[in-house]
Amino acid sequence: MPQMAIQGIIQAQTNIQHLGPFGKQVNEWIQQEVAATAATIASELNVPRETITLTENVTSGCNIAMWGIDWRSGDHLLLSDCEHPSIIAMAQEIARRFDVEVSICPLMLTLNEGDPAEVVAQHLRPHTRLVALSHVLWNTGQVLPLARITEVCRNNSQKTQILVDAAQSVGMLPLNLSELEVDFYAFTGHKWLCGPGGVGGLYVKQEIRDNLRPTFIGWRGVITDDQCQPVELQPDGRRYEIATSNYPLYVGLKEAIQVHQQWGTARERYEQICRNSEYLWHKLTELDHVECLRSSPPESGLVSFKLDTSEPQASKKLVIYLESQGLLTRSILAPDCVRACVHYFTLESEIDQLIAQIQKFERN
Amino acid sequence: MPQMAIQGIIQAQTNIQHLGPFGKQVNEWIQQEVAATAATIASELNVPRETITLTENVTSGCNIAMWGIDWRSGDHLLLSDCEHPSIIAMAQEIARRFDVEVSICPLMLTLNEGDPAEVVAQHLRPHTRLVALSHVLWNTGQVLPLARITEVCRNNSQKTQILVDAAQSVGMLPLNLSELEVDFYAFTGHKWLCGPGGVGGLYVKQEIRDNLRPTFIGWRGVITDDQCQPVELQPDGRRYEIATSNYPLYVGLKEAIQVHQQWGTARERYEQICRNSEYLWHKLTELDHVECLRSSPPESGLVSFKLDTSEPQASKKLVIYLESQGLLTRSILAPDCVRACVHYFTLESEIDQLIAQIQKFERN
Repeated sequence: MPQMAIQGIIQAQTNIQHLGPFGKQVNEWIQQEVAATAATIASELNVPRETITLTENVTSGCNIAMWGIDWRSGDHLLLSDCEHPSIIAMAQEIARRFDVEVSICPLMLTLNEGDPAEVVAQHLRPHTRLVALSHVLWNTGQVLPLARITEVCRNNSQKTQILVDAAQSVGMLPLNLSELEVDFYAFTGHKWLCGPGGVGGLYVKQEIRDNLRPTFIGWRGVITDDQCQPVELQPDGRRYEIATSNYPLYVGLKEAIQVHQQWGTARERYEQICRNSEYLWHKLTELDHVECLRSSPPESGLVSFKLDTSEPQASKKLVIYLESQGLLTRSILAPDCVRACVHYFTLESEIDQLIAQIQKFERN
Repeated sequence: MPQMAIQGIIQAQTNIQHLGPFGKQVNEWIQQEVAATAATIASELNVPRETITLTENVTSGCNIAMWGIDWRSGDHLLLSDCEHPSIIAMAQEIARRFDVEVSICPLMLTLNEGDPAEVVAQHLRPHTRLVALSHVLWNTGQVLPLARITEVCRNNSQKTQILVDAAQSVGMLPLNLSELEVDFYAFTGHKWLCGPGGVGGLYVKQEIRDNLRPTFIGWRGVITDDQCQPVELQPDGRRYEIATSNYPLYVGLKEAIQVHQQWGTARERYEQICRNSEYLWHKLTELDHVECLRSSPPESGLVSFKLDTSEPQASKKLVIYLESQGLLTRSILAPDCVRACVHYFTLESEIDQLIAQIQKFERN
């Protein structure tokens, strides 16, 4: 987290302590901050503020979409083979409760050749109700051609909607969701946006909001009458918000986004990310026992590579070694690899350090 | 929040910044803190740690229970007439989705006479699947006789379960949920426990866990295999937890609870709360144009009273005036009243100040 975000959180917390946690003044302040946070997020996604729901994390956002659909027995739900276990668990539970068919389309193999949109098209069915996939695949770092996949879904059926797990894309890719035409786009603030853990959001396309009921529901999602009875849903994305959150965290996320926006536009940041990942990718390809999953420079800040060794759990061991040297990467199970992340603010010297440590690990 | 809680949050945040937000070391630390927080909460409720789910707030806990029940068309859901709009909104949505009948039993009138358990008994139906009510009513401060209400539900049908909105009871009443035999008990850490906003929890009775599926679901609720595929639910209350939370807040809540536990046992704290609310109640009854809703000293730290005046919105005006004087109370719409809270650490001098300001308001 940038210092500005940390300071924002502490100041907001101090302010709440000063005003008292409950009361007119603090409530007005909270409402203002909630609106400002949603507006700042909306500016990153290029969408109207009304389409944004604040959630605790990306998974909660996916759940809102998944459970809000009025599933019918026999409906089909399509996932890719590169989805996070959270989404898979959701799909399993939806299948169980509503007698929905779940199938998986193989996108992992399209990292270096083939057309993901084509693969999705081949796996759609007449009753496909939802396609759930990631914009940036968390394991291989591949950026999916979302505009074309959305088009393929639209052409399949009026009823085929698309839910995007944007855990790895918000804060990394320049986005214009108004143009992308996706139905649901769920994200978190604590990865590429560098905000605090515990705040994320969901974009729901304006035209479909009236048909997506809230599932988990609470006072933040409803309007009450003079007897404190809920009489209708909030007219905008707030209808999917539930109840009390830690509002200082919202301030932290807003501040973090503003730090990024001051550095440069989303496109400028993305271009710098790509320059950094290309630099890392080149350095990695030069190493003897390392193979990058991508055969050309990555289109994202995720650079996944495997170790050419017969040693069991080599990826895991490398990651643990790197952590001991102050370098944070992670091992991925499927496909078995190590994933490094470079942001726009990652320094060449840091990448050089990573490379040097991988070499050192290999020699031992 | 106590200083210890604030310091705990800041230190935890600093620690995460130091270790890095993702990695083996920080994950181990997080797992430890999550377990310690659940254990500390469990010690307040006198239940095994395994029955506790950490949530963002009380409303999320209620939603887990409400949406986890396998409702059948024609099932009946009984609420009291003193429930929070969040629960009412949930009931409305459950009714809509599953064709469930919702009805309301009048408990507000039992504040000074009558037997709430008897009223609940009269409103149960053969198909009552769930009774949802608060342990301490948020509007009048009444403490419901939960043991007897639970007995009444048990006698109605094996299938009649009870969900308790414990927003106002956890941290106020001495609790032994193992003895109480309730099915679901949802609470928040930011009210009577004085923790940060954004952390709460849910107790689910051990015997019924296997029959309550998670609805919103994510990586924290499942166990994955060596291909990162979810293969089963967590064996304990973690199965209802979703994904990334702000873990420093957990530390804050844990520290806040420890401050209380150092002051005294839950019973000692409750007795001091009652001494304070009795003092306030006496002082209020001595005022000319004020009428306490209770005709005898309250059994809780919530003291609700109305103003004997024909002036419109008098309650709201008084609350705004009091806030301008640094005294935080709140106006309640149904019944129309002002609600004051006294905790065990509230000073007599603070209560005297409140009384003096109410008198001053009345003179103007």
